[in-house]
Amino acid sequence: MCVFAAIIFLFLGSVKGFSTKSEPCTYNKGSLCKPALANAAFSTLAFLLGALTSVLSGFLGMKIATYANARTTLEARKGVGKAFVTAFRSGAVMGFLLSANGLLVLYITIILFKLYYGDDWEGLYESITGYGLGGSSMALFGRVGGGIYTKAADVGADLVGKVERNIPEDDPRNPAVIADNVGDNVGDIAGMGSDLFGSYAESSCAALFVASISSFGISHDYTAMSFPLIISSVGIVVCLVTTLFATDLFEIKDVSEIEPSLKRQLVVSTILMTVGIAMVSFFALPSEFTLFNFGTEKAVKNWHLFFCVSIGLWAGLVIGYTTEYYTSNAYSPVQDVADSCRTGAATNVIFGLALGYKSVIIPIFAIAIAIYVSFSLAAMYGIAVAALGMLSTIATSLAIDAYGPISDNAGGIAEMAGMSHKIRERTDALDAAGNTTAAIGKGFAIGSAALVSLALFGAFVSRAGIKTVDVLTPKVFIGLIVGAMLPYWFSAMTMKSVGSAALKMVEEVRRQFNTIPGLMEGRAKPDYANCVKISTDASLREMIPPGALVMLTPLIAGTLFGVETLAGVLAGSLVSGVQVAISASNTGGAWDNAKKYIEAGASEHAKTLGPKGSDAHKAAVIGDTIGDPLKDTSGPSLNILIKLMAVESLVFAPFFAAHGGLLFKYL
Amino acid sequence: MCVFAAIIFLFLGSVKGFSTKSEPCTYNKGSLCKPALANAAFSTLAFLLGALTSVLSGFLGMKIATYANARTTLEARKGVGKAFVTAFRSGAVMGFLLSANGLLVLYITIILFKLYYGDDWEGLYESITGYGLGGSSMALFGRVGGGIYTKAADVGADLVGKVERNIPEDDPRNPAVIADNVGDNVGDIAGMGSDLFGSYAESSCAALFVASISSFGISHDYTAMSFPLIISSVGIVVCLVTTLFATDLFEIKDVSEIEPSLKRQLVVSTILMTVGIAMVSFFALPSEFTLFNFGTEKAVKNWHLFFCVSIGLWAGLVIGYTTEYYTSNAYSPVQDVADSCRTGAATNVIFGLALGYKSVIIPIFAIAIAIYVSFSLAAMYGIAVAALGMLSTIATSLAIDAYGPISDNAGGIAEMAGMSHKIRERTDALDAAGNTTAAIGKGFAIGSAALVSLALFGAFVSRAGIKTVDVLTPKVFIGLIVGAMLPYWFSAMTMKSVGSAALKMVEEVRRQFNTIPGLMEGRAKPDYANCVKISTDASLREMIPPGALVMLTPLIAGTLFGVETLAGVLAGSLVSGVQVAISASNTGGAWDNAKKYIEAGASEHAKTLGPKGSDAHKAAVIGDTIGDPLKDTSGPSLNILIKLMAVESLVFAPFFAAHGGLLFKYL
Repeated sequence: MCVFAAIIFLFLGSVKGFSTKSEPCTYNKGSLCKPALANAAFSTLAFLLGALTSVLSGFLGMKIATYANARTTLEARKGVGKAFVTAFRSGAVMGFLLSANGLLVLYITIILFKLYYGDDWEGLYESITGYGLGGSSMALFGRVGGGIYTKAADVGADLVGKVERNIPEDDPRNPAVIADNVGDNVGDIAGMGSDLFGSYAESSCAALFVASISSFGISHDYTAMSFPLIISSVGIVVCLVTTLFATDLFEIKDVSEIEPSLKRQLVVSTILMTVGIAMVSFFALPSEFTLFNFGTEKAVKNWHLFFCVSIGLWAGLVIGYTTEYYTSNAYSPVQDVADSCRTGAATNVIFGLALGYKSVIIPIFAIAIAIYVSFSLAAMYGIAVAALGMLSTIATSLAIDAYGPISDNAGGIAEMAGMSHKIRERTDALDAAGNTTAAIGKGFAIGSAALVSLALFGAFVSRAGIKTVDVLTPKVFIGLIVGAMLPYWFSAMTMKSVGSAALKMVEEVRRQFNTIPGLMEGRAKPDYANCVKISTDASLREMIPPGALVMLTPLIAGTLFGVETLAGVLAGSLVSGVQVAISASNTGGAWDNAKKYIEAGASEHAKTLGPKGSDAHKAAVIGDTIGDPLKDTSGPSLNILIKLMAVESLVFAPFFAAHGGLLFKYL
Repeated sequence: MCVFAAIIFLFLGSVKGFSTKSEPCTYNKGSLCKPALANAAFSTLAFLLGALTSVLSGFLGMKIATYANARTTLEARKGVGKAFVTAFRSGAVMGFLLSANGLLVLYITIILFKLYYGDDWEGLYESITGYGLGGSSMALFGRVGGGIYTKAADVGADLVGKVERNIPEDDPRNPAVIADNVGDNVGDIAGMGSDLFGSYAESSCAALFVASISSFGISHDYTAMSFPLIISSVGIVVCLVTTLFATDLFEIKDVSEIEPSLKRQLVVSTILMTVGIAMVSFFALPSEFTLFNFGTEKAVKNWHLFFCVSIGLWAGLVIGYTTEYYTSNAYSPVQDVADSCRTGAATNVIFGLALGYKSVIIPIFAIAIAIYVSFSLAAMYGIAVAALGMLSTIATSLAIDAYGPISDNAGGIAEMAGMSHKIRERTDALDAAGNTTAAIGKGFAIGSAALVSLALFGAFVSRAGIKTVDVLTPKVFIGLIVGAMLPYWFSAMTMKSVGSAALKMVEEVRRQFNTIPGLMEGRAKPDYANCVKISTDASLREMIPPGALVMLTPLIAGTLFGVETLAGVLAGSLVSGVQVAISASNTGGAWDNAKKYIEAGASEHAKTLGPKGSDAHKAAVIGDTIGDPLKDTSGPSLNILIKLMAVESLVFAPFFAAHGGLLFKYL
């Protein structure tokens, strides 16, 4: 953080040679704006604040989750309904904490920066973009590091425990079991939280930046300017009301009610939020205003903005439901994959990969329609607020997402504490529902990442002062094709990292089973700490190369090849990365649930494939293990790839515009 | 073919309402050009000629290969060197036949069309683009249908024969063995041949079309105009000389000399061809001329063209060698994948996928550099001739590629004819080298497809009359993101097709083993014909949905959304499809050779993993089976996806420009 803060300050400060003189504004002709050096200093400050808020949110989220785990286990003694409410409320606490915290710090930062900037809103909101960069940089640690941590532990624990030693999941004799449980919190709580926080911070910053050069930005209409923040605030209130539907208005009496109840959360929050968006759009915005659209001006009405925000929100719902269809074993796609296990692991993998590829179709059309409508109605501001619309119910999404790992860990605690079989059954039921909602959460995260990145991309292009990004120029096209390659490079790194870290974990677990006498008989305790250390070390070390790829690509492309090539890279990585991310997440989710389908044996068809230990089940376990790094490491990490490159380009845009493209200048 | 020919005629004829009046030319101001109806008729004719040439080439290629198979087996009695020369010469006959045939028919077509068109070169070369479309449409059958055919038979034969019944590969008791051997010819000979023929026809057409509106096109300099054809002719001569290096100048005495000898072919042909390009560029082209560059003019020198063609040629060599590095088991990437089989199939698949993702990096940089240089020097003409440069050694590429399936089938014949073990060993050695060269051939095919598609894309944009394809407009961006999704949709279809066709084959093979008495003991013959029928029916039926996706997307996108969105779709599918294609091909190739590495046990490391039947080997077999549809069906079929959509858009461009974008017009 400190090193990167220094880079931001130096690069941005050098734009006007560290001069402390005020400059004429770019868009608000005739006024004087603060010097570039001030923007450099405040961008750095905003970066640090964003990063610290993200760290704090991740820390508090893990605190909440680890407290909640044990409570959920205890409540499970009283019945599945009580346990569900405890797990869900804890998830909601985390969701509200994260969204409120993010909004509050952003708001206070704006108020404080305004004391210096006064009427120079261009400079003010340019500096604020650092907040988004800070949030997203920490998400790199959460998603990539957390993803490697959790899957190294999970794959390692399973390969020795379940396959070689034939002991159940979460058995306390397995040395990697604590690392596995810790991993759920690191990857699914801190990683997911920081990812969504990053998206939220970035889309707010992109919207604010684009708004600052609109007609109401230039005329200093503060209420209209705060439109993105008000949308998010209303979202928190809507989610508060929605939560009551799960915890108080309806009571969960049976296991089968859990999944519908969680899915109802999504629908209720979306419907309520649509009303909220309508109110905010009509009260906060002037009835007509103009937006800056890459060199031209665009007249926009307030009800246009209502459509922009709403279409983002509803696209999120479509993506969520599609993800559920392709990853839940209640529907035919996953059942077909399970069925293909009859002829072995190879057909399981072929059908699983095909399912993942197929599952991108509807989400991409949903995103494309959202982009077309919001882009046509309100240019890049439309895209930014569409992303905010999708994220406006972030508290609910996080609640149902965090509910998953909390229930998973509750089951782990029940197993390790030697509690009765009945309690384990209840927590397993909670966990199964959590699996599908986790996939929905990933769908949301990817969909919002796509919209956010496009908004940031648009803001970058505006700030860099280019008017078109023409595919038919060599500079842009090579950026496009190389950008489309980056998700593959990045995935290759993260998948191999999980593979080699898992192999190390396997060796350590085997070593402990072989050298600690009485471990298998339960007379001696394993050395849990050593396995935790292996996961921690591996995740910290292995995240450096993919992290460097993400952080350095915009700097290298912008400095050596200039803003046009960088624009191509951003567009290429966006359109290619979103496909890889969705297909990887859904393939992994489908394999996981195909395995659960065979294990549960709930239908006639499932019974012909099972039970546990049958050939078909063994084939399904192989698929599940392959899916682990796809769905929890490489897939979701791509969100960070596309967002972080875009926000970094936005922050450094003045530098690239002033000093970039060295290679082409000298050739 | 007939239906599509009718569509071409009707759509293009409707551009000017089937009028038979001559029109003023678009680029050659002041002259009169032939009516749109004539262009429609001649485009249709060119389409039919291209399709027929492709069919003829495929037919003759398979004839040659099936004669050569048996001869190679017989020559193997005399030694590995003799067998190699026979197999390689047969491959070369096919390579020369295909390249010469394609060039000859194209040349005659131009000469005949000129009788009608006279001085209207714009119309002449516009109509000629139909030839490329015809070639590529047939390649759809060859690649997609052939890919499904061969892999349904291969996977089906292996799953029952090798895994369940434990009989060797190509054992005559296996009912699917003939289908498997036929499949090698369908997929690897006819499919690969039609794919490369399509690329060749399309890049020639793209180059000729762009040249017809350049300064030497307008001033009717016939020699300069024929530059693309002369390059290809010189290529044939160069390949002829190169072939002597493999068959006459050096003699193969040992198995270990086979692979270097094949690789030497690539280097020799590339070096000789560079000299050839230099000569053609200086003698055929005027020293300076202007090219049309999306509304502006660009001054170009003849040595610029030398660089354009050469960089394409050398980029092909880089791609070929990179592919070899990632798929040959002589290097560490495949050895690492083999090593990961220790911990089971799951880690094998994780490492294999990571290898495939990683293997796209260098080819994409090679393509990007080739695009940048040729685009900067000579706009879209540069790209088109760079593609021709890569394809100029097509005869050599096809020779070493066709050599693979010929050797593979020779081994099958030896096994089925009950020839001695020694002969089988010799043909196996030939086959192993063929495996790697097949991967190189696929790399070539994908690389050239990328360049060809870009050239066609540029020609389409010129012909449709749009000046920029700006990513920052909603119409283009939604095209881009949906286009990037198409390779996934297409792969989902083709992979699932192979999966379900293989399951049908498994059922039939099992049925024959269970119902034909004495089959396992070798006393009765299986019903080979039924298995051939299953593969044939499956490939013809299952290729319809992916074929329809490819053929209908440009028509729907162009008609409903207009040329800007279609341009976005083409760019998106190109930059995304090339990554999916390269990674799929190389992942599959690596798994195949990792399995062969363990089976051969040639090094100390390999011996610790083997022998056949060990747990590591079983894990490797699973990877190999997963890789089959990836490397032989879905991966290479994507070449067709990106090329065919581009050439179809080019042919229909006048229609889309005149009547397209209905949806946006009425909204």
